[in-house]
Amino acid sequence: MKKIQNKQWIYSKIPEKSVDQSHYTLEENILTISDLKSGQAILKAAYFSIDPYMRIQQSRNNTWEEPHPLNTVQRGAVVCQIVGINDSNTTLKKGDWVLSYTGWQEYAITEISNLRLLDPKEVSVTTALGVLGMPARIAYFGFIETGLPKKGETVVVSGASGAVGQVVVQIAKIKGCKVIGIAGSEEKTKFLKEIIGAHEVINYKKYPTAKEMHQELRRLSPEGIDIYYDNVGGYITDAVFEHINLNARIIICGQISQYLGGLDTPEMGPRFLHKILYQRATIKGILARDYNDRMDEMLSEMIPWVQNGLIQYHETIIEGFDKLPEALNMLFFGKNKGKLIVKV
Amino acid sequence: MKKIQNKQWIYSKIPEKSVDQSHYTLEENILTISDLKSGQAILKAAYFSIDPYMRIQQSRNNTWEEPHPLNTVQRGAVVCQIVGINDSNTTLKKGDWVLSYTGWQEYAITEISNLRLLDPKEVSVTTALGVLGMPARIAYFGFIETGLPKKGETVVVSGASGAVGQVVVQIAKIKGCKVIGIAGSEEKTKFLKEIIGAHEVINYKKYPTAKEMHQELRRLSPEGIDIYYDNVGGYITDAVFEHINLNARIIICGQISQYLGGLDTPEMGPRFLHKILYQRATIKGILARDYNDRMDEMLSEMIPWVQNGLIQYHETIIEGFDKLPEALNMLFFGKNKGKLIVKV
Repeated sequence: MKKIQNKQWIYSKIPEKSVDQSHYTLEENILTISDLKSGQAILKAAYFSIDPYMRIQQSRNNTWEEPHPLNTVQRGAVVCQIVGINDSNTTLKKGDWVLSYTGWQEYAITEISNLRLLDPKEVSVTTALGVLGMPARIAYFGFIETGLPKKGETVVVSGASGAVGQVVVQIAKIKGCKVIGIAGSEEKTKFLKEIIGAHEVINYKKYPTAKEMHQELRRLSPEGIDIYYDNVGGYITDAVFEHINLNARIIICGQISQYLGGLDTPEMGPRFLHKILYQRATIKGILARDYNDRMDEMLSEMIPWVQNGLIQYHETIIEGFDKLPEALNMLFFGKNKGKLIVKV
Repeated sequence: MKKIQNKQWIYSKIPEKSVDQSHYTLEENILTISDLKSGQAILKAAYFSIDPYMRIQQSRNNTWEEPHPLNTVQRGAVVCQIVGINDSNTTLKKGDWVLSYTGWQEYAITEISNLRLLDPKEVSVTTALGVLGMPARIAYFGFIETGLPKKGETVVVSGASGAVGQVVVQIAKIKGCKVIGIAGSEEKTKFLKEIIGAHEVINYKKYPTAKEMHQELRRLSPEGIDIYYDNVGGYITDAVFEHINLNARIIICGQISQYLGGLDTPEMGPRFLHKILYQRATIKGILARDYNDRMDEMLSEMIPWVQNGLIQYHETIIEGFDKLPEALNMLFFGKNKGKLIVKV
């Protein structure tokens, strides 16, 4: 009866502002492989996905669902390898790479039906968390189906060097749009310009007020903004609303500037809905989960784009299971470039 | 050579907050009927339309167009009678009632092609300014095409006793929705309940904060809000965002609470875009002018509804050309019930 020493990060305290190790408890326990029921597998985690939505789910209030329950393993997507399996009706086998949603634990027992098989010969398995995973899904469907891009239109992407943003910028380019990417450092704007290929970039730290941001947007796009793919919110969004065109589409994919406290006690900002009126603009909120069942459709287009280099991407990989809470905190201080992943 | 003594209200000073007589100058001049060129008519004003958009156009900044030019006649829709005409190719004749856009002047010379003939035997000519005019057009197309109502859904209408709101409430009922109407006095909520037929009503003066308004909305619609037709903005809108359902549609038709100064120097309010995300909601701004060429389509449905009493309406009629600036100010203090009109 093989026993495995397991470690889990238990979400144990609601953060008020920043989230860090003090909101988690590291627990150790023993998994017994012979406990596997029929249809189950035991997984060994390799790469943990670190995502902004995790902090949303720590809001005190319901968001798209109830808050993440306290005193349970932190939920999240993980790229794992199968180390044990109890099912005669599956082609899955020991050693296979899979995507699971088993959260912050080194080993997990789960139903096989929850797993998605990954092919390491096709692309790096880490891409299942980023450029070919959930962030890509919302970038792809959100930009195309809510943004409704037309060739020659001007697109602004906030959080452009993040996991979602880097994909949106490149899909916008593929669709023939002019793209302005906004990010929070010179290193990131350089990455956006040189690797991702944004036509124009803005380091928002150099334009720390809505007025300055607006002036820079106006300078870079005298023609006005047709599509705004927003991952950030706050004053960047205020600045964009001052410069939108008739029938502009504003896609709310994230509001990361508001996640450290602003969801429970909203930040104040200027009322802007009258501007939506003038330009007959549309604002629409989107969530990746709404496109869960269209993963194959997205991948059939994205895999070739990634394989032939039409879509570039970056991953920021932190090493160590013990770094997970700290890694989550990094997201909100812009410490990642592209998808943030913790490797064990 | 017949001469007519004419009076005009000239828009002469940009208001900072309230708009009143001090922002207008009353001028008198002489019109000569023999000045009529071919294709022109001379009109005698009977009913002036008083609309919130007039105050938007007094913003210092561009809105959907440049600000209303200073030192010109205040623009606006007017129901007139033709008192002189110079055209052999038209069926229009002296004495006919027409809708024109000749603004705040007792008499006006205009091109015949700008006129819409009204039939006083069909419905009251004043309805061309309200329940069968521009306010009805945006109520009808805005609610149906942006609201996309489904039977059984819950609709909240702010400014529900105004020219647009009273129509939206009733179209929502015709479409099988549950309707909550928000207005600013007991008299108005009584009107909404007893004449217009709103299922539930809220006198917002009794719920002067977003929190209180939210609680009342929650009490009246435990099922949540599917469509919000917003004419008002401000804290009422903040309260609605706390209680929207999945895939809610928010129609921004007006933001009258912001028009007295808030367009130039925005009021501060809580940031709410993260809530749009959770509910994958849509916010869309609409303007009546976008449906100008679909007037007949709207009228073909609305005229029977009005004639058979399915749509009720109220008009607040103020007497006297000298009252025009004062009447405009009344809009922003909720002194009207239904369409506000000045009669000469």
